[in-house]
Amino acid sequence: MFMLDTRLQQDTVLIGDFPLCRVLLMNDANYPWFILVPRRADVSEVFHLSNADQAGLWAETTHLAEVLRDVFSADKINIATLGNVVGQLHMHVIARYREDMAWPAPVWGRHPAVPYTDAQIMAIRERLGSVMGSEFVFSEVRV
Amino acid sequence: MFMLDTRLQQDTVLIGDFPLCRVLLMNDANYPWFILVPRRADVSEVFHLSNADQAGLWAETTHLAEVLRDVFSADKINIATLGNVVGQLHMHVIARYREDMAWPAPVWGRHPAVPYTDAQIMAIRERLGSVMGSEFVFSEVRV
Repeated sequence: MFMLDTRLQQDTVLIGDFPLCRVLLMNDANYPWFILVPRRADVSEVFHLSNADQAGLWAETTHLAEVLRDVFSADKINIATLGNVVGQLHMHVIARYREDMAWPAPVWGRHPAVPYTDAQIMAIRERLGSVMGSEFVFSEVRV
Repeated sequence: MFMLDTRLQQDTVLIGDFPLCRVLLMNDANYPWFILVPRRADVSEVFHLSNADQAGLWAETTHLAEVLRDVFSADKINIATLGNVVGQLHMHVIARYREDMAWPAPVWGRHPAVPYTDAQIMAIRERLGSVMGSEFVFSEVRV
């Protein structure tokens, strides 16, 4: 059974679900930084997924990358699956700007996270509201 | 027409070609660190590729990831496309070890590159010789 890694749960805000992946927002207002987690148990590498799930992960990753580029007017999208700290397979999709705090370096380990306010999270959900596609299901907002 | 970015050319050693991607070895003996570059002109984001090329990029990335895990007995494979410095779309596929110099951090910007010797590069080519699959074409060795 799929269970979200506790570290991912602590560091993120639940946004919703694609057919394969849970979509999380990293709770760090420094960057529009999202994480996709395939809802499969005991997977740490992309090649552990079935071929169908691999295709689903890449399709959802690419779709989210394009959505974020548009919605956040990003200069560049960073996509990465590292997993050196959190073993559960997860894919980072991050909107980057030439003037963001870490540019041009990768975001990991650069600056302390700045938690979002509830209003900021609601604003992000609203911006994503019409563009994630018909297969995406938003989570209920937890107050 | 596809032309390899000059920065990528300077920092890497040519290994060969998959049907879509050029395969480069980062000239840094700190990590088994490979780079895939789709042989397409003027592409900086994965969603700029045609759907067929997107599928090709992901298939070649996943295949290389599994090959590297096996050949280098890696603890973890890191996969990333960042492109904040080099605009040409390229995919990092890196074999990581719990005892490597940067672990558990990502490799970028951590330690100065340690160039390979010619003998080390030949040894890596030999290790890859039988496992890259029938669609992979090794480059000629430039002496």
